[in-house]
Amino acid sequence: MTNTPFPFSAIVGQSDMKRAMILTAIDPGIGGVLVFGDRGTGKSTAVRALAALLPPITAIVGCPINAANHEDCPEWAKIETKKKLKRPTPVIDLPLGATEDRVVGALDIERALTRGEKAFEPGLLARANRGYLYIDEVNLLEDHIVDLLLDVAQSGENVVEREGLSIRHAARFVLVGSGNPEEGELRPQLLDRFGLSVEVRSPNDVAQRIEVIKRRDRFDSDHAAFMAEYEKEDAKIRRRILAARKLLPQIETPDDILHDCAELCIALGSDGLRGELTLLRAARALAAYEKAAVLTRAHLRTIAPIALSHRLRRDPLDEAGSGTRVARTVEAVLA
Amino acid sequence: MTNTPFPFSAIVGQSDMKRAMILTAIDPGIGGVLVFGDRGTGKSTAVRALAALLPPITAIVGCPINAANHEDCPEWAKIETKKKLKRPTPVIDLPLGATEDRVVGALDIERALTRGEKAFEPGLLARANRGYLYIDEVNLLEDHIVDLLLDVAQSGENVVEREGLSIRHAARFVLVGSGNPEEGELRPQLLDRFGLSVEVRSPNDVAQRIEVIKRRDRFDSDHAAFMAEYEKEDAKIRRRILAARKLLPQIETPDDILHDCAELCIALGSDGLRGELTLLRAARALAAYEKAAVLTRAHLRTIAPIALSHRLRRDPLDEAGSGTRVARTVEAVLA
Amino acid sequence: MTNTPFPFSAIVGQSDMKRAMILTAIDPGIGGVLVFGDRGTGKSTAVRALAALLPPITAIVGCPINAANHEDCPEWAKIETKKKLKRPTPVIDLPLGATEDRVVGALDIERALTRGEKAFEPGLLARANRGYLYIDEVNLLEDHIVDLLLDVAQSGENVVEREGLSIRHAARFVLVGSGNPEEGELRPQLLDRFGLSVEVRSPNDVAQRIEVIKRRDRFDSDHAAFMAEYEKEDAKIRRRILAARKLLPQIETPDDILHDCAELCIALGSDGLRGELTLLRAARALAAYEKAAVLTRAHLRTIAPIALSHRLRRDPLDEAGSGTRVARTVEAVLA
Amino acid sequence: MTNTPFPFSAIVGQSDMKRAMILTAIDPGIGGVLVFGDRGTGKSTAVRALAALLPPITAIVGCPINAANHEDCPEWAKIETKKKLKRPTPVIDLPLGATEDRVVGALDIERALTRGEKAFEPGLLARANRGYLYIDEVNLLEDHIVDLLLDVAQSGENVVEREGLSIRHAARFVLVGSGNPEEGELRPQLLDRFGLSVEVRSPNDVAQRIEVIKRRDRFDSDHAAFMAEYEKEDAKIRRRILAARKLLPQIETPDDILHDCAELCIALGSDGLRGELTLLRAARALAAYEKAAVLTRAHLRTIAPIALSHRLRRDPLDEAGSGTRVARTVEAVLA
Amino acid sequence: MTNTPFPFSAIVGQSDMKRAMILTAIDPGIGGVLVFGDRGTGKSTAVRALAALLPPITAIVGCPINAANHEDCPEWAKIETKKKLKRPTPVIDLPLGATEDRVVGALDIERALTRGEKAFEPGLLARANRGYLYIDEVNLLEDHIVDLLLDVAQSGENVVEREGLSIRHAARFVLVGSGNPEEGELRPQLLDRFGLSVEVRSPNDVAQRIEVIKRRDRFDSDHAAFMAEYEKEDAKIRRRILAARKLLPQIETPDDILHDCAELCIALGSDGLRGELTLLRAARALAAYEKAAVLTRAHLRTIAPIALSHRLRRDPLDEAGSGTRVARTVEAVLA
Amino acid sequence: MTNTPFPFSAIVGQSDMKRAMILTAIDPGIGGVLVFGDRGTGKSTAVRALAALLPPITAIVGCPINAANHEDCPEWAKIETKKKLKRPTPVIDLPLGATEDRVVGALDIERALTRGEKAFEPGLLARANRGYLYIDEVNLLEDHIVDLLLDVAQSGENVVEREGLSIRHAARFVLVGSGNPEEGELRPQLLDRFGLSVEVRSPNDVAQRIEVIKRRDRFDSDHAAFMAEYEKEDAKIRRRILAARKLLPQIETPDDILHDCAELCIALGSDGLRGELTLLRAARALAAYEKAAVLTRAHLRTIAPIALSHRLRRDPLDEAGSGTRVARTVEAVLA
Repeated sequence: MTNTPFPFSAIVGQSDMKRAMILTAIDPGIGGVLVFGDRGTGKSTAVRALAALLPPITAIVGCPINAANHEDCPEWAKIETKKKLKRPTPVIDLPLGATEDRVVGALDIERALTRGEKAFEPGLLARANRGYLYIDEVNLLEDHIVDLLLDVAQSGENVVEREGLSIRHAARFVLVGSGNPEEGELRPQLLDRFGLSVEVRSPNDVAQRIEVIKRRDRFDSDHAAFMAEYEKEDAKIRRRILAARKLLPQIETPDDILHDCAELCIALGSDGLRGELTLLRAARALAAYEKAAVLTRAHLRTIAPIALSHRLRRDPLDEAGSGTRVARTVEAVLA
Repeated sequence: MTNTPFPFSAIVGQSDMKRAMILTAIDPGIGGVLVFGDRGTGKSTAVRALAALLPPITAIVGCPINAANHEDCPEWAKIETKKKLKRPTPVIDLPLGATEDRVVGALDIERALTRGEKAFEPGLLARANRGYLYIDEVNLLEDHIVDLLLDVAQSGENVVEREGLSIRHAARFVLVGSGNPEEGELRPQLLDRFGLSVEVRSPNDVAQRIEVIKRRDRFDSDHAAFMAEYEKEDAKIRRRILAARKLLPQIETPDDILHDCAELCIALGSDGLRGELTLLRAARALAAYEKAAVLTRAHLRTIAPIALSHRLRRDPLDEAGSGTRVARTVEAVLA
Repeated sequence: MTNTPFPFSAIVGQSDMKRAMILTAIDPGIGGVLVFGDRGTGKSTAVRALAALLPPITAIVGCPINAANHEDCPEWAKIETKKKLKRPTPVIDLPLGATEDRVVGALDIERALTRGEKAFEPGLLARANRGYLYIDEVNLLEDHIVDLLLDVAQSGENVVEREGLSIRHAARFVLVGSGNPEEGELRPQLLDRFGLSVEVRSPNDVAQRIEVIKRRDRFDSDHAAFMAEYEKEDAKIRRRILAARKLLPQIETPDDILHDCAELCIALGSDGLRGELTLLRAARALAAYEKAAVLTRAHLRTIAPIALSHRLRRDPLDEAGSGTRVARTVEAVLA
Repeated sequence: MTNTPFPFSAIVGQSDMKRAMILTAIDPGIGGVLVFGDRGTGKSTAVRALAALLPPITAIVGCPINAANHEDCPEWAKIETKKKLKRPTPVIDLPLGATEDRVVGALDIERALTRGEKAFEPGLLARANRGYLYIDEVNLLEDHIVDLLLDVAQSGENVVEREGLSIRHAARFVLVGSGNPEEGELRPQLLDRFGLSVEVRSPNDVAQRIEVIKRRDRFDSDHAAFMAEYEKEDAKIRRRILAARKLLPQIETPDDILHDCAELCIALGSDGLRGELTLLRAARALAAYEKAAVLTRAHLRTIAPIALSHRLRRDPLDEAGSGTRVARTVEAVLA
Repeated sequence: MTNTPFPFSAIVGQSDMKRAMILTAIDPGIGGVLVFGDRGTGKSTAVRALAALLPPITAIVGCPINAANHEDCPEWAKIETKKKLKRPTPVIDLPLGATEDRVVGALDIERALTRGEKAFEPGLLARANRGYLYIDEVNLLEDHIVDLLLDVAQSGENVVEREGLSIRHAARFVLVGSGNPEEGELRPQLLDRFGLSVEVRSPNDVAQRIEVIKRRDRFDSDHAAFMAEYEKEDAKIRRRILAARKLLPQIETPDDILHDCAELCIALGSDGLRGELTLLRAARALAAYEKAAVLTRAHLRTIAPIALSHRLRRDPLDEAGSGTRVARTVEAVLA
Repeated sequence: MTNTPFPFSAIVGQSDMKRAMILTAIDPGIGGVLVFGDRGTGKSTAVRALAALLPPITAIVGCPINAANHEDCPEWAKIETKKKLKRPTPVIDLPLGATEDRVVGALDIERALTRGEKAFEPGLLARANRGYLYIDEVNLLEDHIVDLLLDVAQSGENVVEREGLSIRHAARFVLVGSGNPEEGELRPQLLDRFGLSVEVRSPNDVAQRIEVIKRRDRFDSDHAAFMAEYEKEDAKIRRRILAARKLLPQIETPDDILHDCAELCIALGSDGLRGELTLLRAARALAAYEKAAVLTRAHLRTIAPIALSHRLRRDPLDEAGSGTRVARTVEAVLA
């Protein structure tokens, strides 16, 4: 019961989830990550761990949207300084019960009452700019809030048109949502707006389960030593992410690979082109993380399941899960 | 992740959608455009692209409804200047979650509280005057807001009768709505109020898909060169639109063509006369765009599917889609 | 896209609808008109046309209920002048989204806040006094507002009992509602409160359709000449209405005709006596319009369908529409 | 379209309804009257007619509850005068859309805002004290308002416990409700709280229908003479009511008649004892109206249908209407 | 139509209901009484009668919770006097439409607005302390208010946690609820919280029905003599109640009787132990009322039906009513 | 009807419930306790008893979250003192009808109005920090409040993002909820968040039932002696809890036992790893309470049913209750 998050590298297994999160740290343009899974599989632990791992950002002091430069800080914020500071990548938690007002921002009642002026009070979307926005149990959010979030996540801009306010500000963040498929499905429209999706399960392997419990136990009872040990692991990952960010623009993308992407998506019958674009982008981030110079089929094979599974139409004649269908198609197309 | 819109002419394929948008730029009286389509087919990209392409308007400085002359600017706006400026054709985005207040305008609370006077604060409908109003996922809007929008779009006037206000102002705009037929149908009453409808699909052709991805990629990585290249294409379209606007009143409409319009609509059993009027108007705009002096059957053939498909009654005995039924009837009537 | 309404006499066909509107202009006591019809059949065009055609009224200057004499102007309006002016017959449009407050009137918030006094701010019902109130798509109004409107339309008085207000004022107007039978039925209780009902359809005759389009086209492109031409026609109708109003009290009603009315309604099994009263009243207005001195069976024959069709009980064993049933019974009873 | 009500005695037929209303004028303790009937059968006409017929009351000038004596006027009304005036029996119309606030009374916002004191602003229930409260289409009222009304009607007291108010005042009135059985049934619980129920129908007799239309016509066109003629008839009824009120306490009630009442109700299986009490009370009022000294079986026979029909349980094996069942039982028990 | 309640002792029959009410007057710890019955069986009459019968209490002058001593009066009431007065046992009527605010108490808006301080304005629960709270038609109350009431009735304390208030005060009262089983059932959870339940029916015996009507008639027409006559009867009951209260702590409870209680409840399969505790407590109150020194099986026999019937689980195989099942089991266990 | 709680040790039977509560007092990290049971089985009595038994805490005087040290007391509380006091472990009752505002805290309206500053007024979650939060009938709470509570209970932190507030404070408490399985099920997602679950039933043993009634009787009638007698028992338990807290970190956990935990949970197919972690933690607390040095299979056997039963998936082919299934699996795995 301490507030220090569990170390990212101390999470046992769950490689898909960890990889997806790392890729969005390399290229936030990949879009959000949706984590499906049984209860108790450490989804929220992982997000809090990610927060501690991420490389810091440089931002104007006091800027409510963490702008990198003075000219990017919105006028309504009335920030005069041009001083910058390093600060942790923001990871904003959208608490259950947060109102639309707090999410998108609202009229600042205090200033309206005391000074009679219409000022904007930024919301969580402002604070999440250049970082992560985490929603636990995305299923439990009201539809209109989810719609709002995805809309903003995609356009990178928060537009507020209410109570006589007409405000816009940058709101570029990676949305991480966790959901339990047993508690109601998400609309296909929404699924498609998440870049990647991963599934987490409780391990069925006794040794792995014991390892989980042991680490958790050490985290509680032997805290300092445990943290020190894994901080080294975390730092390695952080350095690889920073290196991959630099390498990313130089990754070469052969035309064959573009062709593979298109064929894969046509074969899977995934709607729209978001599947291809995400597949390509995430595969490049993976290549960069693996220090490869050229994008290869191997990268596509690794990424296809997490970039495409949630974009398939349900096929009532095919009882296989969507993960299996993607794998099967990858085998056939990239044979 | 930049705010510059993708160039209109760089959109691969989707000729129906692009043509419909161009026609409404030539003659806004055609009415709105409804874009149906799978997710991820670039509907919102296209609208943002249109914004950048459209010819500018001349408007009184500061006028909330972009009036062309001082006398058209509403009294409540209290604009004293007669100065005019060129400004981009307004393209207003109706964000999800916009309240009725922000759409139609409302009592200006600030002035009511501080000066005790009942002033009108114009809404999005005012700002959209003489331009475009874009609604993403028209299905997700509440019915009473859609009703309001169509009502205003048709009458060209926004009437506000609430909170002791009794305000009218011009609100002539082209409504562009996107919808996903899988997420609930629109009422026939509403469909009829859109002038044109087009369908967009993900291409099934590998080469075309690769082209989409490549252009998107260049837009992201080789931005300046890419924009320069397509700005030339966009400028050509803009010039053709301006020329077509001038030509439009001079297009000759032979009586045979009027006869064809009426026969087509009777044969299709489309309700009301809005179908004919739109067909005629859009066909004339097409003729003007093609620099033709006389309206011909060829123009009707091109326009009939996008002007009439969404006005057919569902025929439970005819399994063909409405597009096919229109095409078949066009063949028969205009043979 | 001009605000001048289309001339009443330039409307092609639709004689039932035009006749019903003229009759209510002769005797507003006939009650409202309900116009059923497919979308796009010019229902709202017709109402706006009617507005321009109607003879003007004489009213106290500034009186919110258009009172003809100073003593009829309500006390709360605090009008001191006794000056009168001719002004157009009011035709008030009930916009979609109008709140109950704006319809019936409400506490004047501005005066309550600034002067601390409870003043009444009249609503649309006040402005419609001595004129017309038009509701497009009566089906889309909330039930409690429709109930309110019919209640007031029948009693000729608007009673407001809310927010500490206890106000009454005359509100005598003809209610014109348009509705689309495909978008949900109206309750029989409500149907009965409309005096007349007419149905409008898109013409299936090619020549007529072409005529509609041509006139519409001239209205748009050759406006001034077109308006001048039809203004003459409109003036003729206006003069006939004024003459009929004078003639009306002198129309003789033979007892045989009263007997016919009663027999007709009993044979049709229409509930209540409102059917007979309306039939009689509308037939007399028709007689006056036709400059007849005595009411005849011919008048009943013309009026019966529009006065009685919407008052029949549904007969599950009789597949004929209600119009056919009325016609059949008229043949049998008035043979 | 005048505001003078139609004379009570000029109503053609509908003797049950007229009798029921007269009886409640003799003994308001009988409880309310529920008028069932098709639309257009003159239900609201009859109530407005009743208003004009009723004998006047003597009340303290300015008292919001029309108290007969100064000491009955509630303290919160702050009436200092003891002067009395004759005034018409109040007949209060409960308009559709009246809020709970206006019905039961509420905090006087004006005084609260301007003087900072919690004052009570009486509602329609106060104004209806010692008179009639008319609700058109009781089915359309919200349940909780109907519950409130019946609660008050029975206890004779309006209790307001809200917004920090704790107010009681006399609210003794006769509730007259009209309803259309086709628009949803009333709960048995509510039916039982009305003293009497009558049914009105459109006459199927031609002569009677013509008479209705002729009188209505004279009322509209030959107003003064028509009113003078029937005012005499109305005055006769008024005098009989006043005489009956005096006679009422002296009507003798033989034990046999009490026995008959009880046997009748047991035979009919009507729940509770409200049926017997109402039957007895209404029969006595009838005896008084007929100047009889002793209550007889003839009185019971006349009253039983209107006092008991709405209190029967539905009997699924007996297809006869409740009126027939009462009549049959009356025959058997009082043979 | 007078406000004097009908005398308790003049109620004909209904011995179960009257006994239950008397027992709770002897020992309020027995819990509430739920009166089931047809409409019109005098349920609310009985409660109002009870009010007039009950022995007075001694309370601090002005104390909002009727505290017996100065130290029990809550601090927020700011009562300084220590003077006491005799006053009637409070019987508070929970009117239909009472808001949660008025039931539990709320922020005193007047003081908040005028003096800017957060003061508590006690509600009906405060006023009911040490008395009775009557709810007519408990079925019609909203669930969350019933939950609140039962919660408070059981704990004897009203806890208010809202609007920044955090208030507690004693609220010990006996809840009397009336309900009509035809209008929706109560949840078992709620039934269990009422100490006793009784059923009242309209008598089927003619003589008894006549007696009811005669007494009601005398109450209306021969008021003073009638009241005087029954006041003597009421006084006798009041004296017996006061004597029983004193005797109560001395009633001896043999172990056999405890054993009987337990066996009865196990045999009946009633959930929880509230049944036993109530049975014991009510039986002791009965013994005290009958001036017995020792609790006997006869007392259990009398009380078991009213203490246990509403606590049985529904047995789908046993068509007998719950009253019959209790009686049968009492016979078997206490044979 | 006194406010002294019934002594914990005087509760007859119900050993599972008492044990679960004691374990959470030793290690609050075990998580909440969910008590299922019939009505009337003393669930709320037990919680109030627990309150009186628990060892006191040391807290900063006036700190709204009962912080142990000055630096843990939140800034918004503006506590300047560093003085500490012993105070009873807080046991906060969440009353039915508590609003979200009172639960999580809200803007302090009083300060906002009078001083124009945005201050936080802490809610029940603040007051429950370091103690217990009891919810009677968790089923009756609205879903979004239960979600909030569990969210906070797990993270140990209350995050408030509304009305312009952005507040966090420690809120570490043990949640005790009671529920009646007959009144609607809890979602599996929620069940999993409770650490332990126990079932309580009414005893079917006559002797035990008599004992319950006798003790209750003595508690009411022989209060002082009864309390003195059981206070000794309660003190013993309190001392054992304090001793166990000290011993807890030294309990040895053999690898075999970890292996047993994992095998058990895999065999039972319980989702996630929360089952194992709770089983281990609660078993260690039991070992400490029993003064054992090493964790053994015996401890697991005792704890498995209360730690795992509520985490099983429903098995439609296995009619045995979840308790039986856990017991059977424990036998098989730990044989």
